[in-house]
Order: sequence, then structure tokens, then C-alpha cells
Amino acid sequence: MFMRNTILAAFAAVAVLASPFAAADKTYTIRLAETWGPNSGLLGDTPRNMAAMAEKMSNGRLKFRIDSSNKHKAPFGIFDMVRNGQYDMGHTASYYYKGTIPNAMYFTTTPFGMIAPEMYAWFYHDDGMELMQKVYEPFGLLSFPGGNTSNQMGGWFRKEINSLDDLKGLKIRTPGFAGEVMSELGVAVTNLPPGELYTSLERGTIDAVEWVGPALDLKMGFHQIADYYYSGWQEPNAEVQFLINQKTWNKLPEDLQEVLRVAMRTAAYDMYIQSTHESGAAWASMKEEYPNVTHKVFPPEVINALRETTNRLLNEFAAKDELANEIITSQRDYLKQVRPWTNISDKAYLNSVADQ
Amino acid sequence: MFMRNTILAAFAAVAVLASPFAAADKTYTIRLAETWGPNSGLLGDTPRNMAAMAEKMSNGRLKFRIDSSNKHKAPFGIFDMVRNGQYDMGHTASYYYKGTIPNAMYFTTTPFGMIAPEMYAWFYHDDGMELMQKVYEPFGLLSFPGGNTSNQMGGWFRKEINSLDDLKGLKIRTPGFAGEVMSELGVAVTNLPPGELYTSLERGTIDAVEWVGPALDLKMGFHQIADYYYSGWQEPNAEVQFLINQKTWNKLPEDLQEVLRVAMRTAAYDMYIQSTHESGAAWASMKEEYPNVTHKVFPPEVINALRETTNRLLNEFAAKDELANEIITSQRDYLKQVRPWTNISDKAYLNSVADQ
Repeated sequence: MFMRNTILAAFAAVAVLASPFAAADKTYTIRLAETWGPNSGLLGDTPRNMAAMAEKMSNGRLKFRIDSSNKHKAPFGIFDMVRNGQYDMGHTASYYYKGTIPNAMYFTTTPFGMIAPEMYAWFYHDDGMELMQKVYEPFGLLSFPGGNTSNQMGGWFRKEINSLDDLKGLKIRTPGFAGEVMSELGVAVTNLPPGELYTSLERGTIDAVEWVGPALDLKMGFHQIADYYYSGWQEPNAEVQFLINQKTWNKLPEDLQEVLRVAMRTAAYDMYIQSTHESGAAWASMKEEYPNVTHKVFPPEVINALRETTNRLLNEFAAKDELANEIITSQRDYLKQVRPWTNISDKAYLNSVADQ
Repeated sequence: MFMRNTILAAFAAVAVLASPFAAADKTYTIRLAETWGPNSGLLGDTPRNMAAMAEKMSNGRLKFRIDSSNKHKAPFGIFDMVRNGQYDMGHTASYYYKGTIPNAMYFTTTPFGMIAPEMYAWFYHDDGMELMQKVYEPFGLLSFPGGNTSNQMGGWFRKEINSLDDLKGLKIRTPGFAGEVMSELGVAVTNLPPGELYTSLERGTIDAVEWVGPALDLKMGFHQIADYYYSGWQEPNAEVQFLINQKTWNKLPEDLQEVLRVAMRTAAYDMYIQSTHESGAAWASMKEEYPNVTHKVFPPEVINALRETTNRLLNEFAAKDELANEIITSQRDYLKQVRPWTNISDKAYLNSVADQ
């Protein structure tokens, strides 16, 4: 390496004529902190998939050092650590930071909102990317879609829910905005640490748990102790996030910015497809090993109450904050345009072959 | 450039120590032929999106020259032209070549088969990529997913279809395998050139036209002369294709192979999202400008007959050819695993918010 650098210095004039020549000389090591622990399945696979693509495409000029939460000890501090330059990049979910930046949560998901392909279309062909940047720019950060869990399930219940009354007083683990909505319907929303959920559900300390979907629920084991798996309403898609410190981004030459941009974009799509695959496999295995496990949908009375409450709360957020209003309106308008297409294509098709 | 090459030659020993240095010197121009004409919307946008990403990521070491069908005059000769080295790459659809390689068609779509995310999961997490390569390897070709149109519509009809009898004797433009299936149900399948379809439908020379979906149907104008837009069964997803000559691929250094691989993968996903967006916008505009346009689904009697016929024909193909059997079985098995997940997630959600 010494010899090579000497030669490059000696022929600096040549390097100017041949730009790839100069860029090829410099290696950048990107320190990335992820919210997830070391064995987090598709969530943890995604930044590693991104890093592997970027390293190979850049012929090693981009390198990554990825720290899981057991290393940095701050799973929900990614936003701060990337903002203050402790890390160059983060892999996290924007709705974890709704305390600090309330308008970030809409870029993960909105209850009764878009499914994954609709959400990507909003990001890439409507106002999504621009609005997201508007939220993160004041913090010196860039934010990019970081992978979709696909449609999340409504949770594991030990009793059937046949009416709004059945929900009242139930102790349910469901975090964030969905928890706020459920509270309004009389649910006793709890937010226990993940490690306590299985035992709490088994002992009846809680009545239901909303986690993610089969791919990530499988190893939590809830299907072993709760029979009813309800379809969701609260996260019809959930897009996690790559965060980058603007200063790190600015230091990269244009070709490596594009390598990073494309690697993130591909890894995000890839996570959606990996989740589709693993959810299919996990759901098949749950049903086979625990034949009592049954799929359920909430009755219309419950869905309508959840939806009315969601819309009322969203209207309140929009009334209080101009940027929130802009984001909520944009998502609602886009859903009105794209959903009729989803309905006459995938939905109509899936219904017409329902007995397949 | 002369000076730079002289220096590189003089320090060949150094270049061996520093691989990016050597690779950075060489530019590769990839000649790509597409099936599509010059203004083909999202189909033509996709190879250009791929090329732009690859050029920028490689800092200009990969360059592309893209020829549309008006230039090479062989829209359905892409397979041959890439095979014989006249072009390095192609952007086309594998089912156009079912005359030469019958087993290629399953990599575009299968009637009553997978929707787009399920198909990508089959390609990338099940046997899809391996089986596709098994089909193309004997021809010295590599094949990669090249973009998804998303779910295709069943077509524009001038009369409602309420029974199997209503289909009998109808003159319908629907090509390929779907056409074979419809023939078996008594449909007079026609395959007029695209330029004659509008006039033929208007004059009643044909009764219905199956084209793609709103994004690509809009400028064909069928919605101006046919009121009933039926949901589809024949192409629940349709993945177009990048073809690469194996010799071209082998010439590329590993970093540029990865640049090309990732650019193709991203451009393919991007086309699926672009189609989602444009279909939503086009369907909204059709309904607004032509309020008589109505969405319809074929009655169960028709769907069941189409499905039985499809399965019978697939069984015949599988019985005659070992590799066909392997592909058809793999797709059926995968659908059995993944579809229950689609049903409890996106399908259940879309149905529960149907009145949205």
C-alpha cells in the first residue's frame, strides 16, 4: 500500500485526468449502529445484506462496522448517536423516536394506511421521500427506507374477540400509536419488555400480545400458548429505516454515494421479500405443530371503532402541526388514488381464487 | 488516456497488489436490445434505470448502449441476438420464446399462480433462480428478474360475462398460454397486432382485449370504447427479464458483476413499484373521464373452468418434460406455503377495510 500511495502522489497530474483512479485509492469505513440485538432474523440481516452489496460493488472502498444493541447498549438511541456523529449510520425504525420527532412515525406506518407496495410507491413516486427529508434535515440526517416487515398481524389472543365489549378491560401488549388507539377503546395497554411477554401471556398477566408477524413471532413462541391469531389494522406495512449523518454522506465521492443509495434501496426491498418468504414458512410450521392455532379477523364493529379512533387522533395531530398535516394529507390522498387499483388487482384476484 | 495506460503497464506489478487500481482502468460498453419500442413507458424505463444506476455506481466503467425495437427490428428476437453475441444483454419477457424454449414461460408468470411479492420470494428464497438458470444455461445465457408489471387485468369487454356460455364464441385478443386456456372454453382467440386492436374493438371485429393493466392500457384507449374492465386470472404477476450473454458476464471483474447484478435487481423491484403507482393514477383517470367504466370479476363458474383447464394443461406439460415437471411442482408447492400467509395478511386486511 505504501508503494502504491507513493506512485499515486508522484502522478497526481494523471489522477486528475482519470477520476476513477483517484477515487479508487480511498477507503471509507462506515460505523453503523442497529436497534436490533445480535440474532434478530430479517431485521439484522438487512443492514448486513446492504453492507455486503456495497462492499462488493465498491471493490472494498466502502467498508462497514456494524454494532448491535448488545455492543452500543442504546437500541432506541440510534437517532441521537447518528445525529451526534458517534455513528455514521443507523438501522432502526423512525416511530421509535416519536417522543423527540413526532412527525417521524408516519414514515414507518400509519394504522389503516398503505400496504407495502403502496407505501414504496408513495415514497418513490409521490411525496414520501421529500416529506421524510423535511423531517430529518433539521437534525443533519438523511433517512432512507430500510426494509419492510410486510403487513403486521393484530396479535395473539387467548380468547376470541366478537364485539367491542370483549376488548374492554383486556390487557394487551401493543406499543406506540396503536396502543393509544386501543386505550381509547378501553383496552388496558401494557408495554412489558420482550423477555417477559411469553411468561406474562402464559400466566394470564396479559391477555394478548401484538408483536410483528409469523417470521418474527415464531421464536417468541406465542402460538404455543394462544390459539387466536388476528389479522392486523395497526401496521399494514412497516418500513424500517437507514439513517445517515449528512457529514458522512458529504464526504463520499458521487459513485460511492450511489453505491450506498442503491444498496440501501435493494436491501430494503429484499427485506420485504425475505419477510414474505419467512412469514409463509413460519405460518405453515405454526399451524402444523399447533393445530389449535386459528386465524381470525376482528369483527366489523371493532374494525370500525379502531378506524374512527385512528382518524380522530390523526386529525388532532394534523390540527396541531403544519408538517404533520402535510404528511397525513399526502398519505390519505395517495391511498385514495392507489387503493382502488390494489382492490381491482391483487385483492380481487386473491378473493376469486380464495379456495385455492 | 495514452499516458495513463503507459503508466499502468509500467507498474503492472503494483496493479496486482492493488486490484481496484487495475479494474478502475477499464471501461466496458454493454450493448442491450429491448423488446419494446422507443416510448414504452415503464417497460422501457426499466433498462434505462438499471443502466443509469450501474453507470453511476461504477463511475462510468460500465456504459450501456440501449437499442429499442425500431432500431434492431426484432422485438421477439432478443433471445437469439443475445445468445449469438450480437447483443450483450436483452430486456424482454421469457414467455415470448416458448416456441424455442417452452420451459421459459413459467419465469414470466403462471395463470392462477403467484402475485408479485410471492414470485420474488420464490425466485430469491426458494428454487426460482436455480431453475431459471437450469433452463438458460444450455444456451450460454444468464437470466435475471427484470421488472414486474404487477397483477394484470383480465381485459376490456364490451359485454358483461355472467356465465361460461357468455364466453363461448367471443372473439378475444389474449396471447400465449392464456389464449390456449380460453380456446379450450370455446373462445375464438385472436392475436392481432397491437396497432389494430383499438379499431377492431371499436368496430366489433373483436369483443374483448386483454392487454396489461391500467398503466399500460391507458394510452391504448380501450376504456373509451369498452365499459367492463375484468380482474385477471392469467398473469397474477408478470416478471420481465434481463438476459446476459455468459461470455460478456465472464469478462467483467467481480465488482462490476456485482454492480450489474444489484442494478438489475433494483430496477426490477423499481418497475413493480412504478407499475403500482402508474396503475393507480391511470385507473383513477380512466374512471373520472369515462364514468361508465366499471370494474368486474368473472363469476365463479368461469374462474373455476379457467382454473381446471389451466391445471389440466400444466399437468400435460409436466408429464411430457422432466424440467417442466420440476418447475411446475416447485411453483405449486411454493404457492401452497406462501399463499396462506398472503391470505391472513394483505388479503384479510384489504377485505376488512373494504369500504375505505
